[in-house]
Amino acid sequence: MALHADDAAAAQQIDIDETINRLKSKSGVESVTVLTKDGRVIRSTAAPEQSEIQGKLLSRLVRDAAEIVEELEAQDELSFLRIRTKRHEIMLALDHSYLLVIVQSPQKE
Amino acid sequence: MALHADDAAAAQQIDIDETINRLKSKSGVESVTVLTKDGRVIRSTAAPEQSEIQGKLLSRLVRDAAEIVEELEAQDELSFLRIRTKRHEIMLALDHSYLLVIVQSPQKE
Repeated sequence: MALHADDAAAAQQIDIDETINRLKSKSGVESVTVLTKDGRVIRSTAAPEQSEIQGKLLSRLVRDAAEIVEELEAQDELSFLRIRTKRHEIMLALDHSYLLVIVQSPQKE
Repeated sequence: MALHADDAAAAQQIDIDETINRLKSKSGVESVTVLTKDGRVIRSTAAPEQSEIQGKLLSRLVRDAAEIVEELEAQDELSFLRIRTKRHEIMLALDHSYLLVIVQSPQKE
Protein backbone atom coordinates (compact mmCIF):
# COMPACT_ATOMS: atom_id res chain seq x y z
CA MET A 1 0.00 0.00 0.00
CA ALA A 2 1.52 3.26 -1.12
CA LEU A 3 2.07 6.00 1.41
CA HIS A 4 -0.03 8.99 0.42
CA ALA A 5 1.09 12.58 0.81
CA ASP A 6 -1.68 13.02 3.38
CA ASP A 7 -0.38 10.12 5.48
CA ALA A 8 3.12 11.56 5.36
CA ALA A 9 1.82 14.99 6.41
CA ALA A 10 -0.15 13.41 9.28
CA ALA A 11 2.90 11.42 10.45
CA GLN A 12 5.03 14.56 10.35
CA GLN A 13 2.34 16.41 12.31
CA ILE A 14 2.36 13.79 15.07
CA ASP A 15 6.12 13.97 15.12
CA ILE A 16 6.09 17.76 15.59
CA ASP A 17 3.49 17.54 18.38
CA GLU A 18 5.45 14.79 20.14
CA THR A 19 8.66 16.80 19.91
CA ILE A 20 7.00 19.90 21.35
CA ASN A 21 5.34 17.94 24.18
CA ARG A 22 8.60 16.22 25.07
CA LEU A 23 10.59 19.47 25.11
CA LYS A 24 8.14 21.84 26.78
CA SER A 25 7.97 19.69 29.92
CA LYS A 26 11.73 19.85 30.49
CA SER A 27 12.99 21.90 33.38
CA GLY A 28 13.90 25.46 32.47
CA VAL A 29 12.17 25.43 29.09
CA GLU A 30 10.20 28.65 28.57
CA SER A 31 8.87 28.06 25.07
CA VAL A 32 9.16 25.73 22.10
CA THR A 33 8.41 26.89 18.57
CA VAL A 34 8.55 25.09 15.26
CA LEU A 35 9.08 27.31 12.24
CA THR A 36 9.37 26.75 8.52
CA LYS A 37 12.80 27.73 7.22
CA ASP A 38 11.40 31.07 6.08
CA GLY A 39 10.05 31.86 9.54
CA ARG A 40 6.38 30.90 9.38
CA VAL A 41 5.15 29.59 12.75
CA ILE A 42 3.88 26.00 12.56
CA ARG A 43 3.46 25.39 16.29
CA SER A 44 4.44 27.35 19.37
CA THR A 45 3.94 27.27 23.10
CA ALA A 46 4.83 31.00 23.21
CA ALA A 47 2.30 33.83 22.91
CA PRO A 48 1.34 34.41 19.24
CA GLU A 49 2.96 37.84 18.97
CA GLN A 50 6.16 36.48 20.54
CA SER A 51 6.34 33.45 18.25
CA GLU A 52 5.68 35.65 15.20
CA ILE A 53 8.57 37.96 16.03
CA GLN A 54 10.80 34.98 16.88
CA GLY A 55 9.91 33.49 13.50
CA LYS A 56 10.75 36.64 11.62
CA LEU A 57 13.99 37.53 13.41
CA LEU A 58 15.46 34.13 14.26
CA SER A 59 14.87 32.58 10.84
CA ARG A 60 16.73 35.55 9.34
CA LEU A 61 19.61 35.07 11.78
CA VAL A 62 19.80 31.36 10.95
CA ARG A 63 19.87 32.11 7.21
CA ASP A 64 22.70 34.62 7.73
CA ALA A 65 24.61 32.18 9.95
CA ALA A 66 24.18 29.36 7.41
CA GLU A 67 25.57 31.59 4.65
CA ILE A 68 28.52 32.63 6.80
CA VAL A 69 29.36 29.03 7.72
CA GLU A 70 29.48 28.09 4.02
CA GLU A 71 31.51 31.18 3.21
CA LEU A 72 34.06 30.33 5.93
CA GLU A 73 34.51 26.81 4.56
CA ALA A 74 32.96 25.33 1.43
CA GLN A 75 31.16 22.03 2.14
CA ASP A 76 30.58 22.97 5.76
CA GLU A 77 26.99 23.37 6.94
CA LEU A 78 25.22 24.94 9.91
CA SER A 79 23.45 22.48 12.18
CA PHE A 80 22.82 24.25 15.47
CA LEU A 81 22.95 27.74 16.91
CA ARG A 82 22.91 28.57 20.58
CA ILE A 83 22.37 32.15 21.71
CA ARG A 84 23.12 32.95 25.30
CA THR A 85 21.74 36.23 26.56
CA LYS A 86 21.59 37.84 30.00
CA ARG A 87 18.07 36.47 30.48
CA HIS A 88 17.62 33.45 28.24
CA GLU A 89 19.28 30.75 26.25
CA ILE A 90 17.86 30.36 22.74
CA MET A 91 18.62 27.13 20.92
CA LEU A 92 18.02 26.87 17.20
CA ALA A 93 18.15 23.45 15.60
CA LEU A 94 17.85 23.00 11.85
CA ASP A 95 16.65 20.02 9.93
CA HIS A 96 15.75 19.74 6.25
CA SER A 97 12.31 21.31 6.55
CA TYR A 98 12.02 23.00 9.92
CA LEU A 99 13.67 25.27 12.39
CA LEU A 100 13.14 24.34 16.03
CA VAL A 101 13.42 27.19 18.55
CA ILE A 102 13.76 26.38 22.24
CA VAL A 103 13.93 29.26 24.71
CA GLN A 104 15.05 28.32 28.19
CA SER A 105 16.24 30.02 31.32
CA PRO A 106 20.04 30.32 31.31
CA GLN A 107 21.97 27.27 32.53
CA LYS A 108 25.02 27.66 34.68
CA GLU A 109 28.10 26.88 32.59
CA MET B 1 50.86 56.88 41.15
CA ALA B 2 48.30 57.26 38.39
CA LEU B 3 47.80 54.46 35.94
CA HIS B 4 48.72 55.71 32.49
CA ALA B 5 46.86 54.80 29.32
CA ASP B 6 50.02 53.03 28.17
CA ASP B 7 50.11 50.89 31.33
CA ALA B 8 46.46 49.97 30.86
CA ALA B 9 47.07 49.06 27.23
CA ALA B 10 50.06 46.91 28.22
CA ALA B 11 48.05 45.15 30.94
CA GLN B 12 45.25 44.47 28.49
CA GLN B 13 47.80 43.13 26.00
CA ILE B 14 49.17 40.65 28.53
CA ASP B 15 45.64 39.62 29.36
CA ILE B 16 44.84 38.92 25.69
CA ASP B 17 48.04 36.92 25.22
CA GLU B 18 47.39 34.91 28.38
CA THR B 19 43.83 34.17 27.31
CA ILE B 20 44.96 32.98 23.88
CA ASN B 21 47.73 30.82 25.32
CA ARG B 22 45.40 29.25 27.84
CA LEU B 23 42.72 28.47 25.25
CA LYS B 24 44.82 27.32 22.31
CA SER B 25 46.38 24.49 24.32
CA LYS B 26 42.99 22.97 25.18
CA SER B 27 42.07 19.71 23.53
CA GLY B 28 40.07 20.12 20.31
CA VAL B 29 40.79 23.83 19.91
CA GLU B 30 41.66 24.62 16.28
CA SER B 31 42.10 28.37 16.51
CA VAL B 32 41.66 31.31 18.84
CA THR B 33 41.11 34.83 17.52
CA VAL B 34 40.57 38.11 19.31
CA LEU B 35 38.71 40.73 17.32
CA THR B 36 37.59 44.26 17.93
CA LYS B 37 33.80 44.58 17.91
CA ASP B 38 33.93 45.80 14.32
CA GLY B 39 35.91 42.76 13.20
CA ARG B 40 39.53 43.93 13.14
CA VAL B 41 41.90 41.11 14.07
CA ILE B 42 43.96 41.86 17.18
CA ARG B 43 45.49 38.40 17.64
CA SER B 44 44.89 35.05 16.03
CA THR B 45 46.38 31.59 15.95
CA ALA B 46 44.62 31.00 12.59
CA ALA B 47 46.16 31.73 9.19
CA PRO B 48 45.91 35.48 8.39
CA GLU B 49 43.44 35.08 5.50
CA GLN B 50 41.24 32.84 7.66
CA SER B 51 41.26 35.21 10.64
CA GLU B 52 40.50 38.18 8.35
CA ILE B 53 37.44 36.48 6.90
CA GLN B 54 36.37 35.29 10.37
CA GLY B 55 36.67 38.87 11.57
CA LYS B 56 34.58 40.26 8.76
CA LEU B 57 31.82 37.65 8.77
CA LEU B 58 31.55 36.68 12.42
CA SER B 59 31.60 40.23 13.78
CA ARG B 60 28.70 41.00 11.42
CA LEU B 61 26.79 37.95 12.64
CA VAL B 62 27.35 38.95 16.26
CA ARG B 63 26.11 42.48 15.57
CA ASP B 64 22.98 41.07 13.91
CA ALA B 65 22.40 38.61 16.76
CA ALA B 66 22.85 41.37 19.37
CA GLU B 67 20.26 43.52 17.59
CA ILE B 68 17.82 40.62 17.38
CA VAL B 69 18.21 39.77 21.07
CA GLU B 70 17.37 43.36 22.00
CA GLU B 71 14.46 43.41 19.57
CA LEU B 72 13.04 40.19 21.07
CA GLU B 73 13.16 41.62 24.56
CA ALA B 74 14.14 45.15 25.59
CA GLN B 75 16.83 45.14 28.31
CA ASP B 76 18.10 41.74 27.23
CA GLU B 77 21.66 41.50 25.90
CA LEU B 78 23.68 38.99 23.90
CA SER B 79 26.57 37.43 25.79
CA PHE B 80 27.58 34.30 23.92
CA LEU B 81 26.93 32.64 20.58
CA ARG B 82 27.74 29.04 19.76
CA ILE B 83 27.62 27.85 16.17
CA ARG B 84 27.66 24.14 15.58
CA THR B 85 28.45 23.07 12.03
CA LYS B 86 29.07 19.67 10.45
CA ARG B 87 32.83 20.23 10.82
CA HIS B 88 33.41 22.70 13.62
CA GLU B 89 32.05 24.37 16.68
CA ILE B 90 32.54 28.14 16.69
CA MET B 91 32.19 29.93 20.01
CA LEU B 92 31.82 33.68 20.11
CA ALA B 93 32.17 35.42 23.44
CA LEU B 94 31.54 39.14 23.80
CA ASP B 95 32.92 41.50 26.34
CA HIS B 96 32.87 45.30 26.40
CA SER B 97 35.74 45.78 23.97
CA TYR B 98 36.47 42.49 22.26
CA LEU B 99 35.00 39.54 20.49
CA LEU B 100 36.70 36.24 21.25
CA VAL B 101 36.37 33.54 18.58
CA ILE B 102 37.24 29.95 19.44
CA VAL B 103 36.99 27.34 16.70
CA GLN B 104 37.12 23.75 17.88
CA SER B 105 36.42 20.30 16.55
CA PRO B 106 32.82 19.32 17.28
CA GLN B 107 32.13 17.85 20.71
CA LYS B 108 29.77 14.96 21.14
CA GLU B 109 26.56 16.28 22.72
